[in-house]
Amino acid sequence: MSDAHAARRERLREYCSASGADAALITRAANVRYLTGCPPCGAALLLTRERAVLALPEDVPPEEAVEREVDEEVTGLPVPAETDAAVAAAEAAARLRVADLAVEEHDLTVDRHRAVGRLAAPARLLDLNRAVERLRVVKDEHELADLRIAAEIADQALGELLESILVGRTERHLAMELERRMIDHGADRAAFPVSVGTGSHSGLERHQPTDRRVEEGDFLTVALGAQYRGYGISTARTFVIGAAPAAWQVELHRLVFRAQRAGREALGPGVEQHVPDDAARSILQAAGHAEHAVHPLGHGIGLEIREAPRLGPADMGKLDNRVPVTVGPGVHLPGRGGVRIEDTLVVRPPEEGGPELLTITTKELLAL
Amino acid sequence: MSDAHAARRERLREYCSASGADAALITRAANVRYLTGCPPCGAALLLTRERAVLALPEDVPPEEAVEREVDEEVTGLPVPAETDAAVAAAEAAARLRVADLAVEEHDLTVDRHRAVGRLAAPARLLDLNRAVERLRVVKDEHELADLRIAAEIADQALGELLESILVGRTERHLAMELERRMIDHGADRAAFPVSVGTGSHSGLERHQPTDRRVEEGDFLTVALGAQYRGYGISTARTFVIGAAPAAWQVELHRLVFRAQRAGREALGPGVEQHVPDDAARSILQAAGHAEHAVHPLGHGIGLEIREAPRLGPADMGKLDNRVPVTVGPGVHLPGRGGVRIEDTLVVRPPEEGGPELLTITTKELLAL
Repeated sequence: MSDAHAARRERLREYCSASGADAALITRAANVRYLTGCPPCGAALLLTRERAVLALPEDVPPEEAVEREVDEEVTGLPVPAETDAAVAAAEAAARLRVADLAVEEHDLTVDRHRAVGRLAAPARLLDLNRAVERLRVVKDEHELADLRIAAEIADQALGELLESILVGRTERHLAMELERRMIDHGADRAAFPVSVGTGSHSGLERHQPTDRRVEEGDFLTVALGAQYRGYGISTARTFVIGAAPAAWQVELHRLVFRAQRAGREALGPGVEQHVPDDAARSILQAAGHAEHAVHPLGHGIGLEIREAPRLGPADMGKLDNRVPVTVGPGVHLPGRGGVRIEDTLVVRPPEEGGPELLTITTKELLAL
Repeated sequence: MSDAHAARRERLREYCSASGADAALITRAANVRYLTGCPPCGAALLLTRERAVLALPEDVPPEEAVEREVDEEVTGLPVPAETDAAVAAAEAAARLRVADLAVEEHDLTVDRHRAVGRLAAPARLLDLNRAVERLRVVKDEHELADLRIAAEIADQALGELLESILVGRTERHLAMELERRMIDHGADRAAFPVSVGTGSHSGLERHQPTDRRVEEGDFLTVALGAQYRGYGISTARTFVIGAAPAAWQVELHRLVFRAQRAGREALGPGVEQHVPDDAARSILQAAGHAEHAVHPLGHGIGLEIREAPRLGPADMGKLDNRVPVTVGPGVHLPGRGGVRIEDTLVVRPPEEGGPELLTITTKELLAL
């Protein structure tokens, strides 16, 4: 893995050279991890043409420091407890006579940016323009392997939940149980707070679980994701509770299923980012649900749960090969509930069999 | 409660007038909540002399919007999904002809600050200088009542855990069980990730639970906090597993207990912030553990788990009455383990009986 990190740093150095910076200061946790393997701990990376200096808070327990897999090319710079690692890295930049330092203006607050500028002086601060985020879009085989494991863990946890009794249990308890099961199966943690919505809460994208109990006849929407070695996936399914779903439930589920499939099938290298959203949204619109589907269809996913590229109606770039994305349309009818179905898939060309589905739990309307 | 929020907004208006701003844009979630009651949801508050405009993302589920207790004086400004509420509030500032707009430079990234400046033009941006954080330091009776309940919840969860079998269980499982118990007892959520460290992991301040199992003879450090209506507390205890603690364990626990008590007893209105840290640290130093105690003794706590004032060796301000703080010294011996003991207390004058202890679980060295 340390070879992969070194190769990523080399690509960032090339970007910096081309954009007129002689060093970059990386502060965003996912970007530091991408370039060094160091898990989130408040570290900051200074990358010059010749050196890589990782400013590391001293109070991280030694056991965790060992797990960091930081390779030998990276010099550790211990940072006293309660000190901003970015500021320590800025001081190092001044010592190393950096002239033009590219920083992450989408991550640094105005306060921290000011402190970094003061300590890095006489270096001039530039914006790195999300260069590391752009490097992160296309995943390598190590990353795809971790994403596959993360998806398998979420599928296992969900599968086990479906075999248990659900009626009478609260959204909160179901969410906690899913989180526990993912950790039991080897997840670092839940990639985002598990969402469980039943009855009128079903079909919402970011519903925070409440004490509402699952009842006969409810729609039940579950959205979960595991994180494995830093890489997360996201999946959502909607089920119905009891033997016989109502006609409107069958119809709404079929509609969202069709929209989700259209979105998945539209994925491919070279496809414009808005095309999968168009494909899914037009189906929902034709059925009169335009105003009930307010979110973009999906987004990239990896070290952050939402990352580039976004798959929304106004997103104009083109998809690349080996980009993991979510595809998750939903319809929520206020007061009644709704359906969400989401997968994580990897964009692949037709000659490789098209999009690779990572989250394989059935999308049929199970009656539980 | 809406009266309390209105009174807080009035105090902020007074600050703005005195500092030459005719409006403030509040983006930090805890500050928006403090001034409106609106839980974290990406909202932003524009406060002018006459008006309070709350820019609210449209995709927040209606059930949660109802829970917000936002009072009538506040005008809601719906913000389309995926749009930055701060930018929408900045546009509103331009429409309301704001000339000098104070923003939270410690919260806005450089990117967002630039976008806010562009949309608020011709308004000039100033820094609010953490004015809301300063208003938040001294708590009112509503806030103290919520903190007391949060502490009671954490104490209940911890008490139940101590009655169960611990040997053979993993740090991760114990942490998840504590979180579940806090939620069962009415917490919104855990105020921070529960930390459970056993054996060589004990005594660390921010240990992330692992698959290590509790063994006979281990020190076991548990750090947890409940959040109730947005208000969090923090507490830590260290126990020993098995019938007979070793002599070094008894001695180290007694030492940290003495240091923690000295820190607690030094709290009082008018006391300089470094004094409680001095009191605790000098005891640890006299016992030869200076280098094993790297953290400040404690910090303020409330809507954020770490807020002003900080109780570190170099902190020079004075404590006020009715300020909740943590007092939590620890000693960690690398490879062996250690002891941490932390309480949340409210600063009170001697005539009211001195510091009010919120987290009342015993601090004795229980052998479990």
